[in-house]
Amino acid sequence: MKKILVLGAGLSASTLIKYLLDQAEELDWYVRVGDISEELAERKTKGYSRGESLGFNIQNQEQCETEVANCDLVVSLLPARFHYLVAQVALKYSKHMVTASYVSPEMKSLDAESREKGIVILNEIGVDPGIDHMSAMRVIDQIRYKGGTLASFTSNTGGLVAPKYDNNPWNYKFTWNPRNVVLAGQGVAQYIENGRYKYIPYHKLFTRIQRANVLNYGEFEVYANRDSLKYRETYGLHNIPTMYRGTMRRPGYAKAWNVFVRLGMTDDTYILEDSENMTWREFINTFLFYDPDTSVEAKLSKYLGIPEDSGVMYKLRWLGIFNNEKIGMKKATPAQVLQHLLEQKWTLDSDDKDMIVMQHQFVYSLNGEKTKITSSMVVEGKDQVHTAMSMTVGLPAAIAVKLILTGEITETGVIVPVMRSVYDPILNELEKYGVKFIEEVATV
Amino acid sequence: MKKILVLGAGLSASTLIKYLLDQAEELDWYVRVGDISEELAERKTKGYSRGESLGFNIQNQEQCETEVANCDLVVSLLPARFHYLVAQVALKYSKHMVTASYVSPEMKSLDAESREKGIVILNEIGVDPGIDHMSAMRVIDQIRYKGGTLASFTSNTGGLVAPKYDNNPWNYKFTWNPRNVVLAGQGVAQYIENGRYKYIPYHKLFTRIQRANVLNYGEFEVYANRDSLKYRETYGLHNIPTMYRGTMRRPGYAKAWNVFVRLGMTDDTYILEDSENMTWREFINTFLFYDPDTSVEAKLSKYLGIPEDSGVMYKLRWLGIFNNEKIGMKKATPAQVLQHLLEQKWTLDSDDKDMIVMQHQFVYSLNGEKTKITSSMVVEGKDQVHTAMSMTVGLPAAIAVKLILTGEITETGVIVPVMRSVYDPILNELEKYGVKFIEEVATV
Repeated sequence: MKKILVLGAGLSASTLIKYLLDQAEELDWYVRVGDISEELAERKTKGYSRGESLGFNIQNQEQCETEVANCDLVVSLLPARFHYLVAQVALKYSKHMVTASYVSPEMKSLDAESREKGIVILNEIGVDPGIDHMSAMRVIDQIRYKGGTLASFTSNTGGLVAPKYDNNPWNYKFTWNPRNVVLAGQGVAQYIENGRYKYIPYHKLFTRIQRANVLNYGEFEVYANRDSLKYRETYGLHNIPTMYRGTMRRPGYAKAWNVFVRLGMTDDTYILEDSENMTWREFINTFLFYDPDTSVEAKLSKYLGIPEDSGVMYKLRWLGIFNNEKIGMKKATPAQVLQHLLEQKWTLDSDDKDMIVMQHQFVYSLNGEKTKITSSMVVEGKDQVHTAMSMTVGLPAAIAVKLILTGEITETGVIVPVMRSVYDPILNELEKYGVKFIEEVATV
Repeated sequence: MKKILVLGAGLSASTLIKYLLDQAEELDWYVRVGDISEELAERKTKGYSRGESLGFNIQNQEQCETEVANCDLVVSLLPARFHYLVAQVALKYSKHMVTASYVSPEMKSLDAESREKGIVILNEIGVDPGIDHMSAMRVIDQIRYKGGTLASFTSNTGGLVAPKYDNNPWNYKFTWNPRNVVLAGQGVAQYIENGRYKYIPYHKLFTRIQRANVLNYGEFEVYANRDSLKYRETYGLHNIPTMYRGTMRRPGYAKAWNVFVRLGMTDDTYILEDSENMTWREFINTFLFYDPDTSVEAKLSKYLGIPEDSGVMYKLRWLGIFNNEKIGMKKATPAQVLQHLLEQKWTLDSDDKDMIVMQHQFVYSLNGEKTKITSSMVVEGKDQVHTAMSMTVGLPAAIAVKLILTGEITETGVIVPVMRSVYDPILNELEKYGVKFIEEVATV
């Protein structure tokens, strides 16, 4: 019997735990799920004879050692900063490990030792990162195999509300960590286009949008991610002339969101004076010039050059940001106040479903011909627990766990899923769960 | 005989050292000047029998103890981060200390102990901070004394080139640390206007300018400093409805500088790819959208809505930022590259003179009448060594040293010069050196 230890039983863990427990009998597994809230862990394991829950505190080094020593493979779905702690223990006891998070430099430093010990520490095996790597590398490897030369690779992903439930003027609801959405894009976006490095500062990011159409899901707009350049190394595309990664929203989102960026309302670096007694209207007014004879709406319109009868102003009014109600938050940053407002308006209803959209575009030349491959995936959520986000994060990791334990994945070291031996069996199985890419090929 | 130890013999030290040495015979002082470069220290003390230079390294704790123990008062003109080290030693040996820098929280923590020991650690006794505190507090105290109620206090300062030498299209040359000029305003500017808190994010800062006229020096434009609110406590103006501090430039500067801000060229947080092989033209192009059929100038014009025949574009062309010469800097941030360009264009010629402009405006009510006091100071530099900046930083500190040693200043503790017992004698003596404020009073 193989023992699997899952650390963390939060939102993204549901689909993974269910996958493992559903196959535990057949594959002779025993699955222990630990969370700081034992109750949460219990909810996800109850009813399964092969499953067990425990209260788990990563700060308790002794417990961590005992539990890891006693398993064959550990999955860490804890907050990303704890993965390295778990990895050190996994290495000490020569246990395999799986995480869905980015490889940190410290994690990377365990590579040689984990290869020596014959264990694998597989990271970035969720959706983004995860499915993006695997689906992109499959196409890239195919192009290479044919002898094609890649001229351009763009890759866009979005977590959105499914079309049937897409009923607010922003065409957006929170399907993941709201704080990350409010702070998204801060810093500088870097990419390369036809051999030219391009840098977009945060305050211009939401004006430099691109457009994308995905299958029969209609039109999306895309803003650039911070880190497109580093993927050249991950994918072995050192000299590619164009490399761009972006985030997808529905058309009109960026222009309206840019109001918050331009006003400074997404700033998380300072505390507002007297936020406790401030109304929403006073909150937005605090970013506008002083003029007691002009309405807040008119000042905003003039300051940013946005007509009062525009869709942008409608979106803002719909949020209630001009209302005279008290915010009621003590010592809050602008970003925290904004998040508080959005959480009242952008939360999924109990029967709403989310959606993950991912689209790659590859342009390559072969024998004097230029070909464009568009590879698109859309996954809609099943319910409030098995959301598209939870499924696309949890399934790749769960499948990886199975393939490591069955010996079908034999890689060792600290890796991400960019090699065919890893992505091929995982992508194949993902298709059975409806997570599949549809390719469109065109000569350009 | 009183022994004065001056640590740091850089640009801002010249006037201070000269002041002390000129009076050393008469007041029975001996002045030791220490700098990491003994040669620099020697240049400033040679020819004076009462002066001596030494190589001084603040990292050498033993030397610091020996030197401080052996003096009556230490002036630290070292980089600001070292003041606390010096202050701890000064406190240990019960020696007075003077610095021109902002009081850090650690420095403030020495207050009780320095009062117990009867020594003074006088900070912020340069120009800004320094002369601004003293000149403002003199007027504020006078208004209070009369029984007036202050409704508004705005205070603007600029370091510029003197009018006679003001011969470039930016009407600006570096008269102080260029790096600080390039990074100026990053973060958020906070102030209060008629009881409303106002926040300006960096990318909007140079569009929210005010105008000022100073004596017969003509028109200036003003952008907000980061920290206006904290001065309410410094000056005891807790409930003042309007409090604003700003930086002065000549008209047209802000609009042109804002091009760099909007493009992201003042960013100091990341390294440009391959900056070594980049030309100036490629540098600016890297912040513009990709379009090989349109010139860099036309793309910039379109992106930011700036006509090609505008004064802003002329300023940019004058800098040479569209030139095809190599930058030749390895692993540089955008801000470093921009600074490198500006240093070639904005440097004072050998016979150029600088200028410090400071202007306060106070509006107060008394007996149903509203009065506005405008208090303005302009100081022009004498030569390349005794610049306006060096004089206005060095003289207040030097006078303070004298007044502490002669017993005319008897304050103890960690202080800034906001009390009449300190500012009055210093402002009075500054007038003899041409550093004086001219008041204009109007009923409003």
